[in-house]
Amino acid sequence: MLDAHAGGKISVRTKLSVRTAEDLAVVYTPGVARVCRAIADDPELARTLTIKRNSVAVVTDGSAVLGLGDIGPAAAMPVMEGKAMLLKSFADVDAYPICLDERDPDRLVDIIAALSVGFGGINLEDIAAPRCFEVEGKLRQRVDVPVFHDDQHGTAVVVLAALLNAVKLVGKEVGPRLRVVVQGIGAAGIAVANLLLAAGVQDLVGVDRNGIVTPRRREARDPIYRRLGRQTNPRRLHGPKEEALAGADVFVGLSAGDTLTPTQLGLMAEDAIVFAMANPTPEIDPAVARRRAAVVATGRSDEPNQINNVLCFPGLFRGLLDSGARAVTDPMKVAAAEAIALIVEPGRLAPDYIIPSPFDLAVVPAVARAVGAAVGHTGPPRAVATRPL
Amino acid sequence: MLDAHAGGKISVRTKLSVRTAEDLAVVYTPGVARVCRAIADDPELARTLTIKRNSVAVVTDGSAVLGLGDIGPAAAMPVMEGKAMLLKSFADVDAYPICLDERDPDRLVDIIAALSVGFGGINLEDIAAPRCFEVEGKLRQRVDVPVFHDDQHGTAVVVLAALLNAVKLVGKEVGPRLRVVVQGIGAAGIAVANLLLAAGVQDLVGVDRNGIVTPRRREARDPIYRRLGRQTNPRRLHGPKEEALAGADVFVGLSAGDTLTPTQLGLMAEDAIVFAMANPTPEIDPAVARRRAAVVATGRSDEPNQINNVLCFPGLFRGLLDSGARAVTDPMKVAAAEAIALIVEPGRLAPDYIIPSPFDLAVVPAVARAVGAAVGHTGPPRAVATRPL
Repeated sequence: MLDAHAGGKISVRTKLSVRTAEDLAVVYTPGVARVCRAIADDPELARTLTIKRNSVAVVTDGSAVLGLGDIGPAAAMPVMEGKAMLLKSFADVDAYPICLDERDPDRLVDIIAALSVGFGGINLEDIAAPRCFEVEGKLRQRVDVPVFHDDQHGTAVVVLAALLNAVKLVGKEVGPRLRVVVQGIGAAGIAVANLLLAAGVQDLVGVDRNGIVTPRRREARDPIYRRLGRQTNPRRLHGPKEEALAGADVFVGLSAGDTLTPTQLGLMAEDAIVFAMANPTPEIDPAVARRRAAVVATGRSDEPNQINNVLCFPGLFRGLLDSGARAVTDPMKVAAAEAIALIVEPGRLAPDYIIPSPFDLAVVPAVARAVGAAVGHTGPPRAVATRPL
Repeated sequence: MLDAHAGGKISVRTKLSVRTAEDLAVVYTPGVARVCRAIADDPELARTLTIKRNSVAVVTDGSAVLGLGDIGPAAAMPVMEGKAMLLKSFADVDAYPICLDERDPDRLVDIIAALSVGFGGINLEDIAAPRCFEVEGKLRQRVDVPVFHDDQHGTAVVVLAALLNAVKLVGKEVGPRLRVVVQGIGAAGIAVANLLLAAGVQDLVGVDRNGIVTPRRREARDPIYRRLGRQTNPRRLHGPKEEALAGADVFVGLSAGDTLTPTQLGLMAEDAIVFAMANPTPEIDPAVARRRAAVVATGRSDEPNQINNVLCFPGLFRGLLDSGARAVTDPMKVAAAEAIALIVEPGRLAPDYIIPSPFDLAVVPAVARAVGAAVGHTGPPRAVATRPL
């Protein structure tokens, strides 16, 4: 297994040949000076005359890598290379791993902002919560290229895609009447909650080890918790998780080690939808969940309905780069989710097939098109911040 | 000309294919976790199990790009891409451009140190003096991979290579008796002076627009100038440039717009060696210089004896990466210069052929071997600074 990774999983390819002094004069000096001057005169030309056009930085501090936790930036390299491979293989995006030996959120922002000049997009990866919220939030204010923390928003997009199809099977809708419980208030849980709200869900309740999240709970000193508590839970539930599960239509598990017991599942409404995505062990055994729930999905590749971020990020970045997007917006994420959901043809939709395979060749172009169209709907790109020349 | 650069000059290539769920399980989760754990247990494995093995960051702040000056990091991209192309084309080094929107030297050091985790070497490029000295010096103390400012040291290595052959033609030696004048005390001038001293030159005099550099001159408030003034000029010359040129064996011009007049050239010793490398207009017309000097070299591709950094940096980085070097030392640079000089066979050495063509296929392997051998002579690699796991 280690052999497959020896020497790393990506390399650099040159697009032009340099075999003669004439070649050298074109690709390097003196020819390159004209290209530099053109960009100095009009910085927007960097988007067409340089690799910025098609490049994404896959950036991590190595603080929350896979299920391995805080293993540091060097040990995170194999994952970032894998991510770069997937972006290239699935969507012809040129992605490069940037593993940063830095933990201070403001310094991380400074570093990523400084190097964003050469990239058309920033994929944040495996950065621990709550640092990831601060880094992403501040970075979005600083840079003129899209910033996307995949652990948050990639997961959210694919969960929404799966949910859009799951509700069709049970005759419900992603809307004000759907009752959703999100268990696990980490990076992914927060992002899923936010995107479901953006998609029209209103009755969403967050739960963690200490029960229902409310604005008055102890954790509410944390602004992320406080905001979640304020924006969700419209029926003002409080107390243990069971209070939230009673009559719930959807359970989304993104917890680390918490479970959903069969008894708790039994509290949910008829035709319950259960996404048990704890990794590697789902919150509830999928076979057990299927006895009671109408639709069950997990993060596992050996079960049906795998909620896999690979369904989102390659097509999303393809769409962002092709459309020259300056930011990732909720409408783009919702559009991406809808596009993924629509890959499953109505006639084939079934409890064990609510989400396409990542290897379905229709996925990337559909997501890219949907994202590109949503870029168009967000108005003209905001003015580009460029350095004085 | 712009068309050749459209979309940039490099792309990312994947080394493994990802066509099935089984491929995905190997290159990404869950397979990649084993590789991450191996590196977390032994950080040295990052050098074999990741792209660090063969990768170099080509880093700039865009403050001194070619002859264009301070055009900023976005407009510097085409040059950095060109450099990456040359590293790949000539030496199969995977280089990636990192253009940084940051000018503070300490912050530049912090940024480059943080991202050095994922690279096996750092090529600093087109950073203005004196900032480049500070950035390189501090970075060398911080990171465990070789740092090489090509504008300084690449130029110095190729100048030394050319000089080693030029002196053979006139029966002189690179040693204590050779009198050398370096005109232009910028990044390259300082580096050339230092490397010539490391190679055995003792009688070296720096000159600039204000005449001979001494430790007592006004510029001596600048520590770089002061050190140069102290370490050179053993005969304690002072005053105008002519004082230095009188009886000099070698003139090395690395100035911005300063000249060497035929009258000044006439002051030099018999069999004068003139390297007039101001770009694009040499300090003296090479045809005029050849009437009086025994050997003339320039930076121009349309003249004989082009002093071209491409002769050095690809083979140098190949050697550094292959040998696992942690730093670039003077002995490595001298070894590289000697290897380049030796490519010119004794029987072919002539006043118009003192330096090989960058397209001579013997250059890169010879430089890489020489650098690797010099790494061996510098003792065991110093302990690797790694982050706590």
